[in-house]
Amino acid sequence: MRIDGQAIRQWGRQLFPIASWLPRYRVHTLGHDTLAALIVTLMLIPQALAYALLAGVPAVIGLYASLLPLVVYTLFGSSTTLSVGPMAVVSLMTATAAAQVAGPGSNAYLPVVISLAALSGIILTVMGLCRLGFLANFLSHPVIAGFISASALIIASSQLPSLLGLPDADGSLARRLMALISHPDTVNLPTLVLGISAALVMWLGKHYLAHGLSRLGCSPGLARFVVRMVPIMTIAVVTAITWGGGLASDGVQVVGSVTSGLPSLVWPDMSSGRWQQLGVSALLISVVGFVESMSVAQALATRRRERLDPNQELVGLGMANMGAAVCGSFPVAGSLSRSAVNHDAGAATPAAGLFAAGGVALASVTLTPVIAHLPTTVLAAVIIVSVMSLLDWATLVRAWRYSRGDAAAMLATFFMTLWQGVETGLITGAALSLMLYLYRTSRPHCAILGRVPGTEHFRNIDRFDEVETDQEVLILRIDESLYFANARFLEETIDTLCVRFPGLRHLVLACQAINLIDASALDSLEEINARLKDAGIAFHLAEVKGPVMDRLRDTQLLSALGGQVHLSVYHAWDELHGAGREPRDSLVSVHAQTGW
Amino acid sequence: MRIDGQAIRQWGRQLFPIASWLPRYRVHTLGHDTLAALIVTLMLIPQALAYALLAGVPAVIGLYASLLPLVVYTLFGSSTTLSVGPMAVVSLMTATAAAQVAGPGSNAYLPVVISLAALSGIILTVMGLCRLGFLANFLSHPVIAGFISASALIIASSQLPSLLGLPDADGSLARRLMALISHPDTVNLPTLVLGISAALVMWLGKHYLAHGLSRLGCSPGLARFVVRMVPIMTIAVVTAITWGGGLASDGVQVVGSVTSGLPSLVWPDMSSGRWQQLGVSALLISVVGFVESMSVAQALATRRRERLDPNQELVGLGMANMGAAVCGSFPVAGSLSRSAVNHDAGAATPAAGLFAAGGVALASVTLTPVIAHLPTTVLAAVIIVSVMSLLDWATLVRAWRYSRGDAAAMLATFFMTLWQGVETGLITGAALSLMLYLYRTSRPHCAILGRVPGTEHFRNIDRFDEVETDQEVLILRIDESLYFANARFLEETIDTLCVRFPGLRHLVLACQAINLIDASALDSLEEINARLKDAGIAFHLAEVKGPVMDRLRDTQLLSALGGQVHLSVYHAWDELHGAGREPRDSLVSVHAQTGW
Repeated sequence: MRIDGQAIRQWGRQLFPIASWLPRYRVHTLGHDTLAALIVTLMLIPQALAYALLAGVPAVIGLYASLLPLVVYTLFGSSTTLSVGPMAVVSLMTATAAAQVAGPGSNAYLPVVISLAALSGIILTVMGLCRLGFLANFLSHPVIAGFISASALIIASSQLPSLLGLPDADGSLARRLMALISHPDTVNLPTLVLGISAALVMWLGKHYLAHGLSRLGCSPGLARFVVRMVPIMTIAVVTAITWGGGLASDGVQVVGSVTSGLPSLVWPDMSSGRWQQLGVSALLISVVGFVESMSVAQALATRRRERLDPNQELVGLGMANMGAAVCGSFPVAGSLSRSAVNHDAGAATPAAGLFAAGGVALASVTLTPVIAHLPTTVLAAVIIVSVMSLLDWATLVRAWRYSRGDAAAMLATFFMTLWQGVETGLITGAALSLMLYLYRTSRPHCAILGRVPGTEHFRNIDRFDEVETDQEVLILRIDESLYFANARFLEETIDTLCVRFPGLRHLVLACQAINLIDASALDSLEEINARLKDAGIAFHLAEVKGPVMDRLRDTQLLSALGGQVHLSVYHAWDELHGAGREPRDSLVSVHAQTGW
Repeated sequence: MRIDGQAIRQWGRQLFPIASWLPRYRVHTLGHDTLAALIVTLMLIPQALAYALLAGVPAVIGLYASLLPLVVYTLFGSSTTLSVGPMAVVSLMTATAAAQVAGPGSNAYLPVVISLAALSGIILTVMGLCRLGFLANFLSHPVIAGFISASALIIASSQLPSLLGLPDADGSLARRLMALISHPDTVNLPTLVLGISAALVMWLGKHYLAHGLSRLGCSPGLARFVVRMVPIMTIAVVTAITWGGGLASDGVQVVGSVTSGLPSLVWPDMSSGRWQQLGVSALLISVVGFVESMSVAQALATRRRERLDPNQELVGLGMANMGAAVCGSFPVAGSLSRSAVNHDAGAATPAAGLFAAGGVALASVTLTPVIAHLPTTVLAAVIIVSVMSLLDWATLVRAWRYSRGDAAAMLATFFMTLWQGVETGLITGAALSLMLYLYRTSRPHCAILGRVPGTEHFRNIDRFDEVETDQEVLILRIDESLYFANARFLEETIDTLCVRFPGLRHLVLACQAINLIDASALDSLEEINARLKDAGIAFHLAEVKGPVMDRLRDTQLLSALGGQVHLSVYHAWDELHGAGREPRDSLVSVHAQTGW
């Protein structure tokens, strides 16, 4: 066997995109990547700590999730700008899934979270290697928007007690907020003040600071940099106040002492029992993580005129999640906000992610004494301000204007997620997307065609008045591929036509819109052909597309066809119209009979 | 408010099809219907008894399932020939579902079965009233064929122990058959002989008797009648032998004493607890019953040039199932074999079903002493011979020849049903149908079009050599509706084209095959338009269909479109080709670059 060096090199470049960019790495690229990494690291640290709490694990685990995954993604990922690491919705889904298996805060909880990362990693990698990236397309945009918006609300409300310093209590959030209003003395006032102020500062910073600074004559680049520093500065200030003022003794909750240093590597539990417990959850986490990462990566790649391979992205994210599991952390994905910053800051290669991991490693080693004094209320503020931008009313309004069905699917997903949780919500959404599409294609648009006089063009007789028709030759165009969901509809439609047009001798199915005929539809076409033959009507096909014709060639349909296959509708008309009798103008009578 | 008598009458005729045919009922119709009813009754009685045992309930319950359901279907059903009543696959599904909730043979078992009939009845009726008949289309023909074939095998093997007189024992059928071979003395020899002989007689009668009789000069009508009498005659003979020879005391299992007379009416348990236990099972039973009934009813209606309303059939079957529940029986559906016989025997209206119910009522009152002496082995023989015709290898072979994907879905459904049972098998099949379709449409066929010189026709440049193209104007035809599953593919495809054709200035999307653009695809098109604009390429649409254009009219896509909407590809070509420069022959270079 001859070894094809070229093919092997290409395969290697495909599986390890780093092989494409590393040899071309230059000093000025290093400068761009380092600057981007610095900015991303300063955003990543507070988000990592906050999303760890959201996932229900100690804050420092968030830093671990920002180490190995970034390194691994640099090796396997194909996006130059995607910032992999902790992500809000994925952390929420992790917490939901893990809580079904182990009590939050119990010793059994962290191993479950680690297993989730490992299983997600395996699922994503296998999907990528098997080129199953198309599976992620099963979620329609409106359904994703509804799911993400509902998740943002769930996340924000889960953080409200921490932000407001509500006393620990059972009961729904609404009841706890009511209790706060009726007994305002039970709330921890310093927490409330710190939390609300931090949230307000970050929100104002995010939405108005850039505009304000540029009005003050600041350069846009500097203004953007300052805006991005707001969260970490806010955290630093609030932590300093809490520490300096000894507020922890006044009841302000802090993160508490954490082990310093880098994570030790663990071997995650990936037994078949774990698969049974967590398989579905891991799949949903994988799909959401992938879909969200791909949306942002694709949008940024387009701006940079780069190509992304979705299957390679699956491998990259899968390996990153396995990396997260091995360093004892929770599932990760590409972050919208950090990736956009990474792109703006001029990241030139995936090495920027590697450098950000370096920054986080430095923080893990040096910052743990400071992290212990972080008030949780400020992390809650970070989360709330950042997820609020995920609320996507614009998509709902657009969907509503364009298509009630899509808007209904979005609303159903939104409320189902709020009411029954993320997993049920997401599955409902995917099922609704599919049912909506099947419903739409199960009763396709049909048109009876008439000839535009003197031309080779044929048009829907219900839309164009001045067309020529023939009572013995009916031309039916079905505007949809024929498959199991509409096979029966086609049979019914043609039955109806035969009853309505008793003088019919030729029925021409105009196939220009038929892109696929599956086995169920082939059965139906054979059935239709047999029925029409019995009734003395010849069944013709016209304008069958090349790929469809290729598959029909050896079937019984063609060998038993009562009529012929015509190259175009015009050819069919030319041959059949007026054949065997005097042509007469039958437009009006045909037209009057088609009210369907 | 004015009461519209005409509309009310029409609505009444729609909901009660009997209102259409009863006023036209004539004496000669009565003759046809009575004869058909007689023949169907003689087939129905053995099947009813046998399928009751298959469903795990006393044999006489099978007769009850053939009373009220038939009367109710006469009122609400729209098919003139469908013979409603016990059906093999539905009985198997009933037994499977009920055994998950109550021990077979226990006192709690029958109420569960009755609840299943009631819930199925409600589901079917509601689906019919809400016009959800299209939901039954979600199962593709190959998947149904795979499911039914596997069910037939399961049913046949479940009857083997009764047929062969195997001793009661735990363990798989294979192990029990092995035990039979190693210890042939444990088998009940009279049972084995009676069962095998009965099965052989019925099988020979079904497949060869008609041919033999006609060769002996018998008229076809008489031959068909004799063939249909074979099962009931066989049962009569075997019962007589058992009774006369006192074989019950030799260990031949008989049905045993049953309450004589008509069933007393019961009120089925339809509590929310029952819905939680049985809802999914009832849904699956409903769908399978409906799909199978519709297939046979539609086939027969076509032969008679009658129209069937699927939603009215749902109501008819739903009410029949509620009837079954009220007389304390199990779920029913339309039977393939009996309906075909009903049609052949000349049934003219649904009244034939009513008369058959009368026949069964007579049998319930008079035949119970005889039924007590029926050996179960002969009922097993009835079941095995009748389900063997459900094994559908022909569909598999056809599907395999036409489409590997459909054949694979069929095989997967078949093996999944055998391995994991009917419910998992059916759900797997439905999911596979959908995934296969989505996979097929997620990477649609695309073609770059060139002009057939001197005409207004445009053809795929990969299939036609002598076409004219332009390096600045690319015409791309997508042969599929645009929706969430292929929205991303479209973006990727156009990205690729932009990279491959650096000189591009106009991209025309030929939309003649696009029947639908959903909200996700609209997002993608807007994204594509924006990207192309950035790259200095105008994005045009051509041959947008009427219904698609109607929905696009008010969207941002059209208001922001970089190019224009052209009536036809030719109009677009005419306007854009060579605009602003000398035309040149660029066919070869474009053609060489499209290898995708």
